[in-house]
Amino acid sequence: MAPTPSWVKDLKPAGVQGTELLSQERAKSNVNVQALSTFLFTQEGLDRKHRILKILTQEKVFDKSQNYFAGRIDRFETALARAKRLRQLQVKHNWTDQDKQIANELISEPGPYGLHESMFLITLRDQGTPEQHEKFLKPARNYEYIGCYAQTELGHGSNVRGLETTATWNAEDKTFIINSPTLTASKWWIGSLGRTANHAVVMAQLYINNKPYGPHPFVVQIRDLKTHQPLENIHIGDIGPKFGYNTMDNGFLLFNKVKVPHISMLGRFSSVDPNTSKYLRPASPSLIYGTLTWVRSTIVLQSGSVLARGVTIATRYAAVRRQFQDRDAQDPKSDENQVLNYTTVQIRLLTLLATCYALHFTGRGMMQLYEANQKKMSQDAGKASSAKRGAGPEEVTPGSDLLADLHATSCGLKSLASSTAVDGLEVCRRACGGHGYSNFSGIGPWYADYLPTATWEGDNYMLTQQVARYLLKSARSVLKGNEPTNDTTAILANFLAKSETGAAFNIMDKDEDLVAAFAWRSAFLTFEALKHRDENKKAWNDLLVDFYRLSRAHSQYMVVKNFYEALNSSSINSDLDPPTIDLMHKLFRLYALHTLESEASEFYTSAAVTVRQIQLARTNAVMKLLSEIRPHAVRLVDAWDFPDWQLDSSLGRYDGKVYEDMFYRASELNPLNAITVDPYPNSEVLFKTNDSGKFKSKL
Amino acid sequence: MAPTPSWVKDLKPAGVQGTELLSQERAKSNVNVQALSTFLFTQEGLDRKHRILKILTQEKVFDKSQNYFAGRIDRFETALARAKRLRQLQVKHNWTDQDKQIANELISEPGPYGLHESMFLITLRDQGTPEQHEKFLKPARNYEYIGCYAQTELGHGSNVRGLETTATWNAEDKTFIINSPTLTASKWWIGSLGRTANHAVVMAQLYINNKPYGPHPFVVQIRDLKTHQPLENIHIGDIGPKFGYNTMDNGFLLFNKVKVPHISMLGRFSSVDPNTSKYLRPASPSLIYGTLTWVRSTIVLQSGSVLARGVTIATRYAAVRRQFQDRDAQDPKSDENQVLNYTTVQIRLLTLLATCYALHFTGRGMMQLYEANQKKMSQDAGKASSAKRGAGPEEVTPGSDLLADLHATSCGLKSLASSTAVDGLEVCRRACGGHGYSNFSGIGPWYADYLPTATWEGDNYMLTQQVARYLLKSARSVLKGNEPTNDTTAILANFLAKSETGAAFNIMDKDEDLVAAFAWRSAFLTFEALKHRDENKKAWNDLLVDFYRLSRAHSQYMVVKNFYEALNSSSINSDLDPPTIDLMHKLFRLYALHTLESEASEFYTSAAVTVRQIQLARTNAVMKLLSEIRPHAVRLVDAWDFPDWQLDSSLGRYDGKVYEDMFYRASELNPLNAITVDPYPNSEVLFKTNDSGKFKSKL
Repeated sequence: MAPTPSWVKDLKPAGVQGTELLSQERAKSNVNVQALSTFLFTQEGLDRKHRILKILTQEKVFDKSQNYFAGRIDRFETALARAKRLRQLQVKHNWTDQDKQIANELISEPGPYGLHESMFLITLRDQGTPEQHEKFLKPARNYEYIGCYAQTELGHGSNVRGLETTATWNAEDKTFIINSPTLTASKWWIGSLGRTANHAVVMAQLYINNKPYGPHPFVVQIRDLKTHQPLENIHIGDIGPKFGYNTMDNGFLLFNKVKVPHISMLGRFSSVDPNTSKYLRPASPSLIYGTLTWVRSTIVLQSGSVLARGVTIATRYAAVRRQFQDRDAQDPKSDENQVLNYTTVQIRLLTLLATCYALHFTGRGMMQLYEANQKKMSQDAGKASSAKRGAGPEEVTPGSDLLADLHATSCGLKSLASSTAVDGLEVCRRACGGHGYSNFSGIGPWYADYLPTATWEGDNYMLTQQVARYLLKSARSVLKGNEPTNDTTAILANFLAKSETGAAFNIMDKDEDLVAAFAWRSAFLTFEALKHRDENKKAWNDLLVDFYRLSRAHSQYMVVKNFYEALNSSSINSDLDPPTIDLMHKLFRLYALHTLESEASEFYTSAAVTVRQIQLARTNAVMKLLSEIRPHAVRLVDAWDFPDWQLDSSLGRYDGKVYEDMFYRASELNPLNAITVDPYPNSEVLFKTNDSGKFKSKL
Repeated sequence: MAPTPSWVKDLKPAGVQGTELLSQERAKSNVNVQALSTFLFTQEGLDRKHRILKILTQEKVFDKSQNYFAGRIDRFETALARAKRLRQLQVKHNWTDQDKQIANELISEPGPYGLHESMFLITLRDQGTPEQHEKFLKPARNYEYIGCYAQTELGHGSNVRGLETTATWNAEDKTFIINSPTLTASKWWIGSLGRTANHAVVMAQLYINNKPYGPHPFVVQIRDLKTHQPLENIHIGDIGPKFGYNTMDNGFLLFNKVKVPHISMLGRFSSVDPNTSKYLRPASPSLIYGTLTWVRSTIVLQSGSVLARGVTIATRYAAVRRQFQDRDAQDPKSDENQVLNYTTVQIRLLTLLATCYALHFTGRGMMQLYEANQKKMSQDAGKASSAKRGAGPEEVTPGSDLLADLHATSCGLKSLASSTAVDGLEVCRRACGGHGYSNFSGIGPWYADYLPTATWEGDNYMLTQQVARYLLKSARSVLKGNEPTNDTTAILANFLAKSETGAAFNIMDKDEDLVAAFAWRSAFLTFEALKHRDENKKAWNDLLVDFYRLSRAHSQYMVVKNFYEALNSSSINSDLDPPTIDLMHKLFRLYALHTLESEASEFYTSAAVTVRQIQLARTNAVMKLLSEIRPHAVRLVDAWDFPDWQLDSSLGRYDGKVYEDMFYRASELNPLNAITVDPYPNSEVLFKTNDSGKFKSKL
């Protein structure tokens, strides 16, 4: 590669330097960044992150400088090396699983142990018997067995009941035959399977005496422990390149009548009696719902930080980047304007900044709800059946009021939060103008890896039916005159009670009225949907679009409510100083009013607000909030405390050396610059030279 | 790579085969696909495409099977080989530039000759003198000079006046010194520059006797014609990987006081007298505006087809893919439902299908407007100055009414059409569920390559100011009582005339009233914005968000109007049969009503429609149109006539063999499956085997 000449190395960016611009930004705001970071993540959380960061940055294998350049195979290879080293470091430093999770977030790429460390270990732990723990979980925890969770098939995603892989009980020799009867039965998308795993938890339709019992989990060895070659009658491979997530080996898997022993069926909740061939249900599987709820809650909790990465990068760059003079400026020779000063940039970035905080507090609220539920179930379980065999805290019958609410809340918020984060990241990328398209922006690759979150753990459209179903059920209960038992039924009952007086929310002055307006719209849409379904007997399918809107409306209400409650908690006054608290309230109002005016039509139709209020929100309140928040923008993103190493972004550097970093990566790190081509169409030679000095021909 | 075992090869997808499902879809619609294709593209256009396709598919270098797997360097290498071969084919088959463009669309990847064949040749042709044509254009047309267009800099995009590269006139030896005074002056993003070009048109600030004359184009040789190494004091390289467009070598370029002769400055519109050092303007540069308008019009014209690729893929797959039984179905054992039957899928895909047609007819209307303008300018020029030196048709003073309208229209529609296409492609990708994330879907890579269209040729936010400025100017003219001179002033005058009676549009029954409602909203927002600016004296910057909304509203009006006019043209009755025409009207209504209800708030506020009308549009009209269009969906995408070879998509195959193709690519083509890893964390070895039989260590 041609070295960068010294006359280039001497050049500096024109005008005020990025470092100076960001310093000026930080100087003009009084936000206490450290206090705000602590409020968001706790001091212990911040300390732990920086301790782990220090270890990672000292290891050569975690060097990120070639990440954006490497192709699929090289990236996978590096990811595997990193996964191995990370496991070694975990042992060496005695890291907890949470510590390791923090390390993974800092590394910020999916790794080949991903599904082993999550779904494989969790499923073995939660669905295995003590005997199976000994046989499978123990070697899995020692990384002798490396596993994956094989549920999705080529022809079957969300509808688990439609899975085609079969597990047929064989009474004679007390085995199961695992089989893939069709091409669409091929397991597909299975993380860590393509090249890495030697075991799989396989979800398969259980058959006993030709009778189907639905999908059940089986532990199956799929590769030889020494040669790592697929076992006989098993076909495995990586499914190929994806939009992102290419450091992970998502795989496919087919079985040609593979025999596994009786112990392979994970037996805590269901099993086959080896002697009588009878189907047994030793415990209720409500735990499984609990796990899914937990996974969705985690997505909600992470969504704020996920989006904040993009907002941090785009906001810092918008403070460094200058373009055009202000059209109303008097002096035609004045400097170009910081892009962050344009209202078309503010309406995108500052509203998303507010959204990051909104999602963060919502995720925290969601987790608290989850933990409250776990505690309650644990208490109930203790009362009900403390002597039950192997009874864990989650083993009570589902369907309790809190659990149903938790399930619906986690579905609606997972859908809203992940869609908001992913779409918001793309808005951030585009707000960076042309340079946003370079991988060095750091936003595009991050977006591409996060993108599947909108589809997995429940497709963001599909999930909304769960929310609608729950809201309709709640509305029916309220209509029957039942007393409200939770917030959902309370807002529905309140809406009904006010049906004769109508709404009169002072959204421009009172935060609590803003929350109430969101509740009102959600309740209005719920009763509208109920009328369509119960009175007009509309087909379920014809209501799906309404249900989607309803779920979105209700989830936005929950976000506004959680944000409001976080800012009105008793602890905030001890954690933050008054100016920062005041700014948090402005972010709350910006999120709520901007959402309200973006969804204006439903607020009109429900008569939650007047046309005039919407106009005022749009043209006055939101614009005023943007200008009030603008001076604090850089400090407000600093509070998210992303190390440069984690962001891996030229545009988002803390020190503002945007152009120097872009240039360095292109001129010094880019392997494409090691080749010299022959550009003429009639020459058969493609490369005149490359690093290895060889000529190359392709035509 | 392990071969696919025979027991796997014998497997078929479960249930009704994809081929059968698509046949059923095609059987239940009476749309005449061939007539509709001809209506969209003309018979001559279709024939030409298929003739070229046949030639391309016979050439090994255009084989696409490794496109999705290859890394950056391999992809670039292949793209260069293809570019060379394509040029050879052009010569061999005597293809016109348009033929070559069709070939490029079929190949569907940006190539290293891209900027040579567009901006480099066009700029030389349009801005060069006859002497410069001989010296630069002739060898460029022969591919002895391979060039690029170096305008954008590391620190400067849209604001061309802010460019930093300088060209200083040297009276003593009659040369220019090209120089990059800072790091931000580095040319950046320049297509075909990174590895390929040996010449560049460099936009640089002209200085004569220390006086600046603004940016001007200079032809500069940058690499040696034999060794292809950069010339002395020139630093060049590829800028690195991007979100897409990685087959193109976008490059950077810096000059350390490089001397070029007098002839280097393209002299048709401006030059420096070599003897007096005086700045000359031999002709008016309005042509340059014409070129930009043409480029934007092309983007509008292509947007329909760009989006239609995604809609074709997603619609076909949604007809093959089945998931869940219908919730209201009586028979619990009934087959799973085709995903295309779900209203949440229809509301996304069928509205986008309508959008493809809307954009296509709008693009055609835009091109007609452009050509009418060219013709008028040519006539005017002929009258005014037929004896002018080198006078081309575009060389009249800009500012004519038609030209101003054309400029604003092209800005607004470029912004709306490219945003709609790019966002729509992502909606299509997500509508494919999990498999949409695989590159084999064909949507993701296409989206990634198209994405910069939202940023280049005028950022989609920035451009909206041009539209607003024009509308404000038009409104001021109308307020002064001037007679309308075009459609824009006509709708503004009409709005004013009806200010005492208000609107009463029968949007549910009359297509022309739907168009009028869009015109009303646009006029309302125009006068609102004018009031803010002229009466309330609001700062320009404070109005940018309003301007963005205004531009969007006005552009949506133009799309609705163009679609309406295309369906009410006299030719349609001879080209299409009545059922197909009827369906086209339904697509028009779906596009218009869905857009109207999505933007409901502005339609309320402007009192163009009532709240009840919006509700009816949302819950009745749109849902009814979806169910009426549903049976024709597959034929309506077939009419876009995309060859499978062009789509390169497992999910979008014409024959519906979705799963077979996914499986084939993963199991037979995927090079990652050639390696066997050592998965254990404590082993230092990474790969047990790979194709070359070597062991590999990374830790």
